[in-house]
Amino acid sequence: MTDTSSDTPRLYHVPLSPFCRKVRLCLAEKRIEVELAEVRYWEADGDFLRRNPAGKVPVLRINGRFMAESTPICEYLEETHPSPPLMPEDAESRYEVRRLVSWFDDKFHNEVTSKLLYERVNKKLMKQGFPDSGNVKAGARAIKYHLDYMAWLLERRRWLAGDNMTLADFAAAAHLSALDYISDVDWNRSDAVKDWYAKIKSRPAFRRILADQVPGFPQPAHYADLDF
Amino acid sequence: MTDTSSDTPRLYHVPLSPFCRKVRLCLAEKRIEVELAEVRYWEADGDFLRRNPAGKVPVLRINGRFMAESTPICEYLEETHPSPPLMPEDAESRYEVRRLVSWFDDKFHNEVTSKLLYERVNKKLMKQGFPDSGNVKAGARAIKYHLDYMAWLLERRRWLAGDNMTLADFAAAAHLSALDYISDVDWNRSDAVKDWYAKIKSRPAFRRILADQVPGFPQPAHYADLDF
Repeated sequence: MTDTSSDTPRLYHVPLSPFCRKVRLCLAEKRIEVELAEVRYWEADGDFLRRNPAGKVPVLRINGRFMAESTPICEYLEETHPSPPLMPEDAESRYEVRRLVSWFDDKFHNEVTSKLLYERVNKKLMKQGFPDSGNVKAGARAIKYHLDYMAWLLERRRWLAGDNMTLADFAAAAHLSALDYISDVDWNRSDAVKDWYAKIKSRPAFRRILADQVPGFPQPAHYADLDF
Repeated sequence: MTDTSSDTPRLYHVPLSPFCRKVRLCLAEKRIEVELAEVRYWEADGDFLRRNPAGKVPVLRINGRFMAESTPICEYLEETHPSPPLMPEDAESRYEVRRLVSWFDDKFHNEVTSKLLYERVNKKLMKQGFPDSGNVKAGARAIKYHLDYMAWLLERRRWLAGDNMTLADFAAAAHLSALDYISDVDWNRSDAVKDWYAKIKSRPAFRRILADQVPGFPQPAHYADLDF
């Protein structure tokens, strides 16, 4: 190929999307260089929709093809770039990682992220009106139970799915970091959760996420502070 | 162990749930003997909720532990019982299987299954009132586009994700068979899709699903007919 720029993987993303952040963390941890291309997918850009008929982010262009769906992308990156590993070796532990990824991307997403982040940020960006206060209240209530569940796990394990950092930690950190950008995480609720987030936040893979800026939503001081 | 009955895996399920059906198809294809236990999870049975804090089905008791989340369960079964395989060998093809599983369990589920099956069946079973006609209309419209997408894939491939039957076919067949039970699939829309469903329906793994009976919803004549 003469056009070397097209060899570099490119990720079409939205900065605060937890699904995009999970893929960004995987790429960075595995030291896969990637260009980030911000997409306003809700404006139904024709080029973008041709690349991904599901019309959502993230979309990763890699090895000459376009890939959608964040967890299948992460599993693909794990299989093609196994080092450093983000999945354990044995089937039981791999199950536990996948269960927790589903927990955060499905249950946590529906009960918390969609109720807080989407109401406060996405609605404004997409010009869809004001946050629904019932949703915001429900999300603020639900995040407490989720933080308690994480604390319960982290009092028994070094990382969420076991003794090593895995994709489950990135899935959780992707949601929590996006919510932390809008100051919706009470880090004083659990020392175990705060310590876990401090560990993951200080990894080189997290740097680019801590540098994100969203127009109209200034980054709060604690967000990028490793000593929050 | 003296109690051998507890060694047989047990699946806590709801007959028409596509997520339960996907796991049932995997278990049957891999000839893993399983006891089926029907759960009315919406009645918040205390014992069941202790087994699965997410409060949903399927839950599989296997090797002395309880597992939730249908796709992580299927990946676990694939890793512990690799024969016959439901995942291809190479990373690109495995990605395509996982992408399609997500497509059906996420997009198809939200646009079609939740709009048709949940409105027509779940609401009645759960005593939550009558179907919302706007949702039913939206689901009936959306299934056409999904059948056309499947036809597009099946005109290029023997099975949905490639030349071999995979978990992607089971994910799709799990949704479509549940919708077929309530006669919501127009099999005349595409020969390619109808041929695909005839192939998958005639597999031994499908038998138990074709024998399902839901009180209050008599099984239509074409549902179990291999020559539908």
